[in-house]
Amino acid sequence: MTPEKVASTPGSPARGPRSNGVPDSPLAAELTRTLGPKKVLSARSERLNYRYDAIQFGETPLAVVLPESTADVVTAVRAARAAGVPVVGRGAASGLSGGAAPLRESLVISFTRMTRLEVFPERREARAQSGVVTLSVTEKARPHGLIYPPDPASFRTSTIGGNLGENAGGPMCFKYGVTGDYVKGLEFVDEGGEVHELTRDAYDLAGLLIGSEGTLGLITEATLRLTPPPRYTRTLMASFPEVGEAAEAVSAAIAAGAVPSKLEFMDRACTNAVEDFLAIGLPREAGAVLLVDTDGDDLETVEEERALVEAACLRAGGTVRRAATDAESAALWQARRSVSPALGRIRPQRMNEDIVVPRSALPDVVREIRALGDASGLPLVQFGHIGDGNLHPNILFDPRRESPAAVHDLAHEIALVAIRHGGVLSGEHGIGTMKRPFMREAVDPVTLGALWSVKHALDPRELLNPGKILPDEHEDAPHAHP
Amino acid sequence: MTPEKVASTPGSPARGPRSNGVPDSPLAAELTRTLGPKKVLSARSERLNYRYDAIQFGETPLAVVLPESTADVVTAVRAARAAGVPVVGRGAASGLSGGAAPLRESLVISFTRMTRLEVFPERREARAQSGVVTLSVTEKARPHGLIYPPDPASFRTSTIGGNLGENAGGPMCFKYGVTGDYVKGLEFVDEGGEVHELTRDAYDLAGLLIGSEGTLGLITEATLRLTPPPRYTRTLMASFPEVGEAAEAVSAAIAAGAVPSKLEFMDRACTNAVEDFLAIGLPREAGAVLLVDTDGDDLETVEEERALVEAACLRAGGTVRRAATDAESAALWQARRSVSPALGRIRPQRMNEDIVVPRSALPDVVREIRALGDASGLPLVQFGHIGDGNLHPNILFDPRRESPAAVHDLAHEIALVAIRHGGVLSGEHGIGTMKRPFMREAVDPVTLGALWSVKHALDPRELLNPGKILPDEHEDAPHAHP
Repeated sequence: MTPEKVASTPGSPARGPRSNGVPDSPLAAELTRTLGPKKVLSARSERLNYRYDAIQFGETPLAVVLPESTADVVTAVRAARAAGVPVVGRGAASGLSGGAAPLRESLVISFTRMTRLEVFPERREARAQSGVVTLSVTEKARPHGLIYPPDPASFRTSTIGGNLGENAGGPMCFKYGVTGDYVKGLEFVDEGGEVHELTRDAYDLAGLLIGSEGTLGLITEATLRLTPPPRYTRTLMASFPEVGEAAEAVSAAIAAGAVPSKLEFMDRACTNAVEDFLAIGLPREAGAVLLVDTDGDDLETVEEERALVEAACLRAGGTVRRAATDAESAALWQARRSVSPALGRIRPQRMNEDIVVPRSALPDVVREIRALGDASGLPLVQFGHIGDGNLHPNILFDPRRESPAAVHDLAHEIALVAIRHGGVLSGEHGIGTMKRPFMREAVDPVTLGALWSVKHALDPRELLNPGKILPDEHEDAPHAHP
Repeated sequence: MTPEKVASTPGSPARGPRSNGVPDSPLAAELTRTLGPKKVLSARSERLNYRYDAIQFGETPLAVVLPESTADVVTAVRAARAAGVPVVGRGAASGLSGGAAPLRESLVISFTRMTRLEVFPERREARAQSGVVTLSVTEKARPHGLIYPPDPASFRTSTIGGNLGENAGGPMCFKYGVTGDYVKGLEFVDEGGEVHELTRDAYDLAGLLIGSEGTLGLITEATLRLTPPPRYTRTLMASFPEVGEAAEAVSAAIAAGAVPSKLEFMDRACTNAVEDFLAIGLPREAGAVLLVDTDGDDLETVEEERALVEAACLRAGGTVRRAATDAESAALWQARRSVSPALGRIRPQRMNEDIVVPRSALPDVVREIRALGDASGLPLVQFGHIGDGNLHPNILFDPRRESPAAVHDLAHEIALVAIRHGGVLSGEHGIGTMKRPFMREAVDPVTLGALWSVKHALDPRELLNPGKILPDEHEDAPHAHP
């Protein structure tokens, strides 16, 4: 999980010559021959860029393929399998759990050139290749009066393939659902290089692939459900002395019947980081800030719903600011979208958690994590999609200043807080490498055994993105079916 | 699929003494000893009732267990495994694809006594054991201002476990989604008798279990998502000379921005069957009848949406009747809910298909199926959830009058129409035994191989509801991973 830990992972026994001395591997040479030089990166200087994602450093890949079609993916997967080299799929690599970072010397398949996108307004569907940038689905659908709702913070750069791999969420997901809820079917290439076209039938193999981070197959295309956008949106920001009051306001608003389309939370440290970055007048002294959108097709209902939220915030002791114009609303949301770059100014690296806890447990969870952060001395901020109980505690660190072991220990303590309160490790970022070490505490051994059985069924040689999601099988865990 | 075919299925090689001569099997004796006589049915007269579901006759089970807890299920599954006897889970057995009918001499686990149901209004969740009747979730949630939307036609008798097993739909599902969309987590017992508690994490094993008809594990409990009911509902009925015009009206209404909560279709034969049964003045001469609900929290928007649908129906050449009162609305929906009993008066048995086709293909599909029905001389009606393109062609037959082979051939032709138009075999009833013979035409061989791999991973001895969903593995289909 830490750079040290990754570096100590042994390379694949079937790897080619050491990549730091020799520019080419036999696999790269073979792929260059079959796919042509334009679709293969084999020089070390080029390959180096594909060893990390937004959060995790990995191993420099033996070769990188930039496929232009599913047929290219098939060729690449078959060549890798013949060479016994693992395959790691990659979109924009903006993921926050380490899913796209190769942990062994691998073949990286980067989908950025597979960008075919068709919109079928009559069926309210889009068909997108994996490399299509998330936002462009809505851009292409909007002239037809349709949008694609899932909106991970990185949607201007992230790809549909990456979103499917991690089953990405976003602020809209409280009301509208996550990526997987919008997938009507998909095409994937299995570890043997066979192409499968799936609908959401029994067995829901498509649903299993979604969120599996390329460990069960490589998704090459998907059919996405589109919806008409709400006609009206209204925004408010509320600040509270303490986190508990914000959580109370959220619960009261929801109990009163409000279903906000977005319901975001930032703690004091997070608000101050963003304010340092943007200087837009955020309330630095507040213990908690909420950002809320209500939306719908009837303006009166949308404003009534915002009024319900506002009343709940005031009753809980909050201070409310209503956005009067679309521009003011956009400025408030700019604050939430700037969390990642704002944190990057504090420390170069961060350990980003993605826990989900019952909403009623949020005040205790946020307080306990704050106390752990303070005791550790490491910079820690908390924000997230409070409507779902989805919290992102972020530990900020500089490996030259802070001990990666201390970061790991704090991250582990935070995961345990979530589990203790009946929560889970990942809401929308996936498990990747980041939360993998905590899976044994989150999932009981027999269920881990069942997950491993499914993994073996679809990836018998363990060639697909090894080292992600599931902890090593034979580390004192009984197999479900001995 | 036909009674003849089922009768020819060989019994399990590991079965006990022939059940038609001896009242008890060693398995029944063992279960009576461990679970006590109140939880085990071993007399042949009692077991006979558990050999069929709403549509399919199967084999008389060797024993029936009526568990009262997950621990009882574990005991039963372990005993069956030790005896090498298959296990078939069963709810209310109201399913329409044969999923609950045992095809070999089996242990039937009937969940009707596992009816614990708790509602957590604050979390908008219910926790239900598998035997809870679908409707009672909403009944228990409604005092807290919440409902459980999935509404299969049988929801007064069907169970949550059965709904999860088939991933059941219903009229509300066009707007609100199917059963699986409301499952936040579940508990299941695997073929080895281990208990698993799952959330909807990577890998989404819960999603794989949902709709798997008890072939991958036995779901014992689930956490269900509840939502506030819409404040207002408005109903209209429209009749059209031809099916094409009804499909056109639906497409135009949706394109204009209407998202009806229900959008149901009945063809002339279906309308007449219901009118024969209820005599409520349905338009007997219409080629197609639509029943439409719009709903929401703002009355003006709900009525505006109904007006959009009405305008589209009139433009397409339809005649519209608006329900003026709740009672009139209930009477119109009574027509749709009476389809099953109405058809039962025409012939004692029916072959019920559940195809889903692109909405744009509906006019052609309905016409082609009508022509096939007319040519076959068998009574055939069509109805379904037209908003989703989910059509239920029903072949009505009396095995004493009509040849089961002719019924099977017509059902096969209908399945091929759906596949030819880019459709799938099942929208909400599951595959069961009913559509299993057509799976080879609907799913390509490598993907069937992948599905078999998943099946083997979770049920290596093929003890869980054998003979459902997947066609036999070694009937000229290559395995995905040789």
